Parts: sequence; structure tokens; C-alpha cells
Amino acid sequence: MAEILLGALDIGGSKLAATIANDQGPIARVVQATVKSGKPDALGQQCLALLAAAGNAANIDIKEVASVGVSSCGPFAHQDGAIGLVAPNLCGGLTQENDLPNDWTFIPLEFTLRKQFSKVVIENDCIAALTAERYFGAAQAEPNSVYVTWSTGVGFGLCVDGHILRGKHGNAGHAGHILLSEFSDALCGCGNRGDLEALVSGRNLAKHYARAAEDIFTSATAGDAASLNIVKDLAKWFGRGLYNLVTTLDTRCILVGGSVWRHHAELLSPFVEAEIHSRFPALTKGVTLRSAELDDLVADIGALALVMPESWVADWRNRQPWIKLQTIALD
Amino acid sequence: MAEILLGALDIGGSKLAATIANDQGPIARVVQATVKSGKPDALGQQCLALLAAAGNAANIDIKEVASVGVSSCGPFAHQDGAIGLVAPNLCGGLTQENDLPNDWTFIPLEFTLRKQFSKVVIENDCIAALTAERYFGAAQAEPNSVYVTWSTGVGFGLCVDGHILRGKHGNAGHAGHILLSEFSDALCGCGNRGDLEALVSGRNLAKHYARAAEDIFTSATAGDAASLNIVKDLAKWFGRGLYNLVTTLDTRCILVGGSVWRHHAELLSPFVEAEIHSRFPALTKGVTLRSAELDDLVADIGALALVMPESWVADWRNRQPWIKLQTIALD
Repeated sequence: MAEILLGALDIGGSKLAATIANDQGPIARVVQATVKSGKPDALGQQCLALLAAAGNAANIDIKEVASVGVSSCGPFAHQDGAIGLVAPNLCGGLTQENDLPNDWTFIPLEFTLRKQFSKVVIENDCIAALTAERYFGAAQAEPNSVYVTWSTGVGFGLCVDGHILRGKHGNAGHAGHILLSEFSDALCGCGNRGDLEALVSGRNLAKHYARAAEDIFTSATAGDAASLNIVKDLAKWFGRGLYNLVTTLDTRCILVGGSVWRHHAELLSPFVEAEIHSRFPALTKGVTLRSAELDDLVADIGALALVMPESWVADWRNRQPWIKLQTIALD
Repeated sequence: MAEILLGALDIGGSKLAATIANDQGPIARVVQATVKSGKPDALGQQCLALLAAAGNAANIDIKEVASVGVSSCGPFAHQDGAIGLVAPNLCGGLTQENDLPNDWTFIPLEFTLRKQFSKVVIENDCIAALTAERYFGAAQAEPNSVYVTWSTGVGFGLCVDGHILRGKHGNAGHAGHILLSEFSDALCGCGNRGDLEALVSGRNLAKHYARAAEDIFTSATAGDAASLNIVKDLAKWFGRGLYNLVTTLDTRCILVGGSVWRHHAELLSPFVEAEIHSRFPALTKGVTLRSAELDDLVADIGALALVMPESWVADWRNRQPWIKLQTIALD
């Protein structure tokens, strides 16, 4: 039997990563700035080129790879039955304040990848991350779990009764855009005022307070009262967003990842927990908040998990073969 | 083979209904005011007595009934692996403003019913309602659908990717308690201020505006500008709650039931739809709002659907045998 080879793509607003793996683990990973100009299929073409480059680095002909898992920023839409991206941070034609060098309104991702690969599974980045945490990280054996990234933006992967939620276009988990504040003028990239992402995301809070997010957290940790009040306010909104999810989904375990959380979990955690547990004990009792475990490579491992044979899972869980993975940066 | 006989219970804050059915349809239904005093198992005992009474009315010995489906107000909790009720409108020991003649903190429902029946399936009333609408009503063949009741309270049943969501204790869908307003003093029975139910439920809006809900809607329909402004405000909050669900679950179809909606859907519908569709087109485009179809008996049919052999479904869908069902009221 020929060796099974897998490809993985991690598509973000600023960078694109391609990984090649076999049953022993990821072999090579190549990363490049995400293409944002040219025809709408330029991103799909870049994915194909980057997978070929990762194949080269792994000494593998990319034609031997049949299956590709994709972790991508969303949201998604369907055209002729195939998934494409309608992501405001990639498609210039969809944003209100257009600072992108294109007027794309739809990126035909699945259509382009299917020309070369027979199996393509595309999921929202937080769904891929939750898949990785369920296979290999902090959400193993917990059927009612939520993954949330608190970073430049805020996104969720949702698992209820052991099913990871996808929804009509695979966009379940866009709960960064739930409305929480009726009067806040904090503005989200989607146009909402007062949604969760507007109130707490790294990008938006820096705009809102006209200070670097990092500066606010560092000052708060150093004891500055005004900065600490901002942090408490952020934690309150984030906690309210999580409370809203718990009351909607009867979740037990919340995993938090993303750069804001990774660097400031110790400061934020008590305030966020207090906000969640201050309400409706029948739903919030027993809810736990944990840090995600696979943070740096969570998207890549999640993308691989989407197409991985089940027989590989226990061995990878045991050996964590991604730890030795080297990344090659391309211009 | 012996005839298959099913029991169904509809447990509400004010009334309890028991139904007996065979493959031809529901045979008898008995209803009585919900017991709220005595020992914590008084409600379970009333369920057993009412099922026996429905059996009598159907000329059936209740011992021949093996399976009972239950649609109940929640929330639920587990004790020794069995579901019980921790519902603030039944358990006096759980409410802040205690007007109930008991100090219950847990009603051992499943434990009591299992003494007599070998199969007991208990679901939140909105989950049962959604099951009924998916089998026989307005949500057939739509895997991404939400049922919401807008009545004395506000509750949800959620279906994503064809799975009806239950959660760690079967409490998924308590999204009536998501926080929407940061400054409103509208108070919910759960203690929250500014959650969806506080802002729009029949009980709470009557308190908040010190006018009967019905009066507000009748005056608005008759052209009174102040009343119409209240209705627009209610529709805005209800629409925001639905938008939050759509953005969380990527729902396609929203079914609305409950007394407030049933009587005023024509007035409310345009405002609610406008609120949903005013945001995030990638998620809200194509979302439809429909009235539920099985409203009066939705809980009873839902409870039966929870334990019904699949082979009955197509025939019941076709004949709608519940239409002829007579109800007997007991003192």
C-alpha cells in the first residue's frame, strides 16, 4: 500500500502556511504573507504553490498527496456547491474601510483546490482549532466544549453533545459578532457597534482606547489603576460573551487561546470566571475555563486532523510529533 | 405482537397534561393544575396519577404503557444520573421572590417516573417543540433550524447540522437568558437584568411597563404611537436575540411560537426581520422567520415524538391525528 500523505493549509489574514505530513507526523511547513492582489483565485493559486513548496521541502512530489485539510479565516459562502471565502480581512469588495489592494467579494477556495486534490475539507479556523484540542489538547473526552480565540479578533469553535457545530454555510461560531452593549461606540470590522469583538479584540481595543493593547495590559499588571479598570472592563465583556454561550449551549468546558489570552491569562482569568459564575447557577455551575494547549500550531494541527485517518490519532497524541516541526519562511 | 402504547407529559409552570397514544394517534388527554406543594416528589406522583387517568379515559391499563416522553419546563439538573427539575417557577427554594408554597430545590422527575416506566425520555419544552416541528411542522427537512417561544417566558430549541442540541444537563436553548442590554433595569425571574426574557417576555414586559401586554399590542395595532414605539422596542430586542443566535449557530430557519407571537405576528414580524437582516449579511442572508405550525399541542406532540417508533412518523405527518384529540380537564 502506498504511504498516505496529507496536506494542510492555515489561511489567515496576514499569513498563509502549508504543511505536509505522513503517519509519523508533520514533515515540512512553509509560510508566506497572504496574497491580497490579482484575480479572486490568486489565494487558491498561492495555496497550491505553497503546498508544492512544502512538498519540495519534504522531498515529496505533491501529486502523491490526495487529501488536504484547510483551516481558514471566514466567513464562508457557497457557490455552485463549493466553499469560498467572504472574509472582510481578505476581500476588498466586502469591507467598509477598504485598505485592501483588491475588490474581491468571493474567493473560490474549494473550487481551486479541488482541481488538484481529490479530498478537500475546509473549516473555519476556530472549528479546526477545536478539532485539534479535542484530538490532542485540552478538550479530549469533553463532549460539551467551546474553543475561543482572543486575539486580533474573537472567534469560536463550538462542540455540543460531541458534535462540532458547522451550520448552513460552515459559519457557526461567529459569536464574536453577538451584540452585548447597546450604547458603546466601539466599532467592529463587520460594521456592528458594541459586539463582543468590537469591545475586546486586540485590534479594536487599541483603536478604542488609542493605546497599544500590550501597553494597557503591562500597565495594569504593574499596578496602574486606570489600566486595571480597562482590563476589568474587557474581562467583564469577554465573560458576558462566554456566559451567553454557556446559557445557549449548556457548555461545560471553555478553552481559551489567542495572543491576548496567552500573554495575560493570569491577570484576566479571575475576572472572567467571576463574570461567568455570577449568573444562573443551574447553567454556569461546574463550567471550567482552561487555556488551550496547542496554541502556536493549533490551526495547522487542526487542518491535519480534519483529514487524518483515525488510526493515527492515538499515536500522535502520545508522541506529539509536531514539536520538532521546522518552519521555512518564503518571501 | 402487543400493541405499542405511549404516554406523554407536558409539564408547565401552571398546568400539567398527560396523553396516551397508539399508532393511530393520541387517544386521550387529561389536564390539571400543576401541583406546587407537598414533598419534592409530589409533581412526579401527579404525573403518574394523570397518566393513569388518561389511560382510564382511553380505556387502557396504564401498566401496558412502557414508554413515556416528557416535555418540561427547565432548567434540568442530574442527581445520581437521573434528570430532575431545578425550575424557578416550580421550586420555591430557588426563586428570589418566593411566591410558591414549597421550598423545593430539586424535583426528582426521572427517578419517580422510572419506578413505573421502562423508557423515559425527558426534554426541555422547547426541544420537544422543535422535535415536533421537525417531524410534523414547519421545520421538516431543515437541518439548521431554531424554535423560539415568545410567551410568558422566552425559550429556544436549537438544531444545527441536523442535531438537536442538548448540552451537559439538557439545558441547551436557555438563550432567553442571554444578556442584551447593559443598562436596562428590566428584571428576569433568574435575577438577570437586561437579558432577553427580562426585556420582552409577556410576564416581564407587563411588569416593566405597568400595563397588560395585550393592551400594549392592541393599542399599537389601533395606531397609538406610544404603544407602537414600545412594540418596536420589543421587536428590536427580540430581533437582536435572534441575530445573536444566527451569528452563533449559522441558522437558516427560525420558527416562532408562543402566545405573544401567535396573536401579534403580523405587527411584530417586519420589525423583527429588519433587525435580523440589518447586520452581517454573510450570516443573515437567506435566514427565514416563520410561525410554528403545531402551536397548541406542540408540547404534547413533541413529547410523543421523543418516544415514537420511526415507522409511525410518515403516517402521522400525513393524517395529523392530533386534530381530533379531546382534552379532559380535572380539578
